[in-house]
Amino acid sequence: MNKLSTNVSRTIQTKLVLPPDTNHMGTIFGGTVLSYIDEIAAIAAMKHSKKVVVTASIDTVNFLSSAKVGDILTLEGFVISTGRTSMEVYVKVECEKYETGERTLTTTSILTMVAINEDGKPVPVPGVTPETEEEKQFLLHAKQRKERRLKIANLAEEF
Amino acid sequence: MNKLSTNVSRTIQTKLVLPPDTNHMGTIFGGTVLSYIDEIAAIAAMKHSKKVVVTASIDTVNFLSSAKVGDILTLEGFVISTGRTSMEVYVKVECEKYETGERTLTTTSILTMVAINEDGKPVPVPGVTPETEEEKQFLLHAKQRKERRLKIANLAEEF
Amino acid sequence: MNKLSTNVSRTIQTKLVLPPDTNHMGTIFGGTVLSYIDEIAAIAAMKHSKKVVVTASIDTVNFLSSAKVGDILTLEGFVISTGRTSMEVYVKVECEKYETGERTLTTTSILTMVAINEDGKPVPVPGVTPETEEEKQFLLHAKQRKERRLKIANLAEEF
Amino acid sequence: MNKLSTNVSRTIQTKLVLPPDTNHMGTIFGGTVLSYIDEIAAIAAMKHSKKVVVTASIDTVNFLSSAKVGDILTLEGFVISTGRTSMEVYVKVECEKYETGERTLTTTSILTMVAINEDGKPVPVPGVTPETEEEKQFLLHAKQRKERRLKIANLAEEF
Amino acid sequence: MNKLSTNVSRTIQTKLVLPPDTNHMGTIFGGTVLSYIDEIAAIAAMKHSKKVVVTASIDTVNFLSSAKVGDILTLEGFVISTGRTSMEVYVKVECEKYETGERTLTTTSILTMVAINEDGKPVPVPGVTPETEEEKQFLLHAKQRKERRLKIANLAEEF
Amino acid sequence: MNKLSTNVSRTIQTKLVLPPDTNHMGTIFGGTVLSYIDEIAAIAAMKHSKKVVVTASIDTVNFLSSAKVGDILTLEGFVISTGRTSMEVYVKVECEKYETGERTLTTTSILTMVAINEDGKPVPVPGVTPETEEEKQFLLHAKQRKERRLKIANLAEEF
Ligand SMILES: CC(C)(COP(=O)(O)OP(=O)(O)OC[C@H]1O[C@@H](n2cnc3c(N)ncnc32)[C@H](O)[C@@H]1OP(=O)(O)O)[C@@H](O)C(=O)NCCC(=O)NCCS
Ligand SMILES: CC(C)(COP(=O)(O)OP(=O)(O)OC[C@H]1O[C@@H](n2cnc3c(N)ncnc32)[C@H](O)[C@@H]1OP(=O)(O)O)[C@@H](O)C(=O)NCCC(=O)NCCS
Ligand SMILES: CC(C)(COP(=O)(O)OP(=O)(O)OC[C@H]1O[C@@H](n2cnc3c(N)ncnc32)[C@H](O)[C@@H]1OP(=O)(O)O)[C@@H](O)C(=O)NCCC(=O)NCCS
Ligand SMILES: CC(C)(COP(=O)(O)OP(=O)(O)OC[C@H]1O[C@@H](n2cnc3c(N)ncnc32)[C@H](O)[C@@H]1OP(=O)(O)O)[C@@H](O)C(=O)NCCC(=O)NCCS
Repeated sequence: MNKLSTNVSRTIQTKLVLPPDTNHMGTIFGGTVLSYIDEIAAIAAMKHSKKVVVTASIDTVNFLSSAKVGDILTLEGFVISTGRTSMEVYVKVECEKYETGERTLTTTSILTMVAINEDGKPVPVPGVTPETEEEKQFLLHAKQRKERRLKIANLAEEF
Repeated sequence: MNKLSTNVSRTIQTKLVLPPDTNHMGTIFGGTVLSYIDEIAAIAAMKHSKKVVVTASIDTVNFLSSAKVGDILTLEGFVISTGRTSMEVYVKVECEKYETGERTLTTTSILTMVAINEDGKPVPVPGVTPETEEEKQFLLHAKQRKERRLKIANLAEEF
Repeated sequence: MNKLSTNVSRTIQTKLVLPPDTNHMGTIFGGTVLSYIDEIAAIAAMKHSKKVVVTASIDTVNFLSSAKVGDILTLEGFVISTGRTSMEVYVKVECEKYETGERTLTTTSILTMVAINEDGKPVPVPGVTPETEEEKQFLLHAKQRKERRLKIANLAEEF
Repeated sequence: MNKLSTNVSRTIQTKLVLPPDTNHMGTIFGGTVLSYIDEIAAIAAMKHSKKVVVTASIDTVNFLSSAKVGDILTLEGFVISTGRTSMEVYVKVECEKYETGERTLTTTSILTMVAINEDGKPVPVPGVTPETEEEKQFLLHAKQRKERRLKIANLAEEF
Repeated sequence: MNKLSTNVSRTIQTKLVLPPDTNHMGTIFGGTVLSYIDEIAAIAAMKHSKKVVVTASIDTVNFLSSAKVGDILTLEGFVISTGRTSMEVYVKVECEKYETGERTLTTTSILTMVAINEDGKPVPVPGVTPETEEEKQFLLHAKQRKERRLKIANLAEEF
Repeated sequence: MNKLSTNVSRTIQTKLVLPPDTNHMGTIFGGTVLSYIDEIAAIAAMKHSKKVVVTASIDTVNFLSSAKVGDILTLEGFVISTGRTSMEVYVKVECEKYETGERTLTTTSILTMVAINEDGKPVPVPGVTPETEEEKQFLLHAKQRKERRLKIANLAEEF
């Protein structure tokens, strides 16, 4: 299978934070952001694999800053590495105050998406060719992230 | 007030077409697409004006092709011209079949958004500096579009 | 095919404006109103044609006045003319302040809906028989509206 | 306080049954219908009282027939009698198969809505003047329905 | 068919009251509570019957106290008696103020759910074995509740 | 501040998987499950702290098995340890096929929630007293989980 540029999967979302997305103090729910992250990762992985995909895992997410009703969230996601049937997708979420244009990082996240066929069985996906320096670094460290996940899984088993 | 580049307002949305967005034959509702168009126009105009905005009007929308459950819609919007308190926003909607990556134009649309203050009164907005040749053409013909809208309004009055 | 009275398609909606429909200042989104307009046009055209329908186009919409959280929107829609497979649907939106009962016109709009079969192919629809004087005028000027739309399309092509 | 015609509160809703409203066999949830009934009762009572209202009670609801994805639900509601601060609202729900235009009764229901002020305290409402014979019967038997409700409440207490 | 313990169907829901569930004064809509009640009754009846179910009826619901944005609603539902194809489900709704942990009863309700097959035809359901004293009382009075419903239906017919 | 039993925060949710929660093959989105997990963690932490809470982080989530339209998801969450202003909440998600009653583990997850005041500033929370053996183990290893999170953060910084 041919390798595909990160540009094939690159996906952008812009969301206006609205009352249904927030608690009664107007602060966005973590769960709303998580579901936005998963949605963009799914689209990026579908564009890359040309298949339906399911979420196998999402790495630890730290919410670095908050978003309020009226703020604008921008999400960017793209495939950073691939296995046989799985794709690692990197997602970055930024929050923009429309009154000032000021941007802060809300969170970054890495998800593993798996391409499946009509019977729900994993199917092979094309490889990925990074474009920027950052994307090259991401691909380079794919193996280490896989080992890190194993270590975390082992650590987690104990307690 | 300083003029702002079209890059300030440029906004991108990517939407997965889901069952709630469609009729029982799996075809997206025109109304769903219209509400996506309005949402992206509002975000683009908020980014440009740094104000809350309301939709004053949307020009004729022709739906050139359809979208089905599972398709990916991509919307791009940016401010193409400005009045004293109003902004014209151009929005382009494309539909991508994820199985093939094939893209078709769903529709294009021009909306007029007005910046308002806390009392709902129109407030001045910065001008716009186009970046690409297409954007320059858009700005150049703003006056003609305004006249066209007047003509349409007059035509509409009669019947 | 028999002609059907406008009463067959006449459809009424009453909506309470709720927080999820509005921006953080409590003003309804234009996109919410547009999706209500499309929904009622679809129902009116389904009642008339006894078929599934899709939205082909919506003529220019001017939002003449706003609606706030707690207001009551009333929409009325009915088929005003028919082609072979298409139906023109007129929709009127009014806003009522419940504290006073005062009503203002929010907008009017004309949409073209097309009846389709299971394969998504256009299918013939019955003609329409107007009941009121207003409805007769609407039918009378159908040809002129068609020409107007052509003119607008031509005007739009240039810029 | 003046009495108001039933026409003041009369409210009509038309809903297209969509996938999110139904179970995975395409049958509408009773809860969706109940929430439509409550919404129309609230709008009718707001129009009558010019106040915010809350639902005090809903009488037994029997679902006589079902509705499927693609069907059209029509609801009609109006105030049939009033107490000092409470209003009885009658709601009728019919289901229309768009392919045939055939209509069946889904259910009828009577709710008691109470007008409240900003502190959530009940406030007086105007009386109601029925227009049709049916509406006159409704008003005539208001006292009996109140007694019936008391009887039901007493019956219910025992088991 | 074997009888099943009430523990098989027992279902618990906890809901945070959010802006979309409330009017613009922050009070939950009766219709939102009704749709929560129907949802939990459907799940309880599905767990008991291992079938898809539809709501045949809901007995009178009195809303004894209100819930506000930020409150926590707890619902508990379980099958209290069975007919051949129908199940009576009892649902209790309580509201908790998170600031104090104080709980008040919002409402109780009894629904009749019917198990259906793929053609929408009623199918037999297992009986129920009550566990607590309260549940035994519920089962004991099933016949009386059925008669009460008949009486109510007869009473209702007259006016 | 007094310590509170895990029973104070213990929260249960039961969700019917519906079409809007799934992709067009009927498989639930990871993002839907993540937003359910965050919702129950927020309720559990609100019950424990009697404060509004925000999500600080969510540890790695592995989706072990899938859920389909018509399945029943059961979530249980409770506070397993506390810091000065933060609470660790453990959430377990199981999926039940209603046709068989068979249950599988979908995922487990640990989130850190922080109690905040009206200005969004962190405020102290009570400690927790575990009830079961499992809960005692959870509390016992809180420090190790904290160290693990630090290790993961350090690992993540490098690539
Ligand atoms: C993801 C899933 C399809 C994997 O199935 P499986 O039987 O383990 O299949 P395989 O062992 O062939 O693994 C397929 C790929 O998934 C990867 N994978 C499986 N579990 C994973 C996890 N927890 N984290 C990261 N990757 C994982 C494997 O490494 C493998 O990748 P590769 O083909 O690139 O080497 C299966 O666990 C599943 O259906 N999970 C639920 C997914 C879902 O529905 N999510 C939404 C919310 S529940
Ligand atoms: C848009 C609105 C604020 C204009 O108010 P107004 O009293 O007409 O104000 P002004 O005459 O000062 O016009 C303000 C600007 O809007 C423009 N405008 C007004 N109506 C317009 C229309 N139908 N189409 C395009 N532009 C319009 C004016 O040209 C003017 O632009 P400029 O300042 O760049 O020259 C007002 O009509 C309104 O509130 N409409 C409802 C908006 C809304 O809530 N939409 C959501 C759905 S209802
Ligand atoms: C309805 C409510 C305001 C009544 O408050 P209250 O302190 O009992 O007030 P009152 O005794 O003055 O009663 C006010 C009116 O409500 C009527 N009422 C109260 N409970 C009722 C019930 N269960 N069924 C029918 N009518 C009822 C009274 O008869 C009285 O009517 P009247 O003024 O026409 O004679 C109160 O019970 C409440 O807030 N309930 C919750 C309402 C709600 O939020 N519903 C949404 C879902 S929880
Ligand atoms: C409920 C329904 C399936 C019953 O169909 P039916 O042709 O009357 O079938 P039956 O006469 O065999 O009755 C089946 C069971 O339902 C019970 N039932 C029927 N109507 C009832 C009512 N209004 N209240 C309580 N129980 C009722 C019968 O007593 C019988 O119970 P049993 O088998 O335990 O003795 C049918 O009325 C229906 O489809 N209603 C719409 C349900 C629905 O879609 N609700 C969602 C909102 S519209």
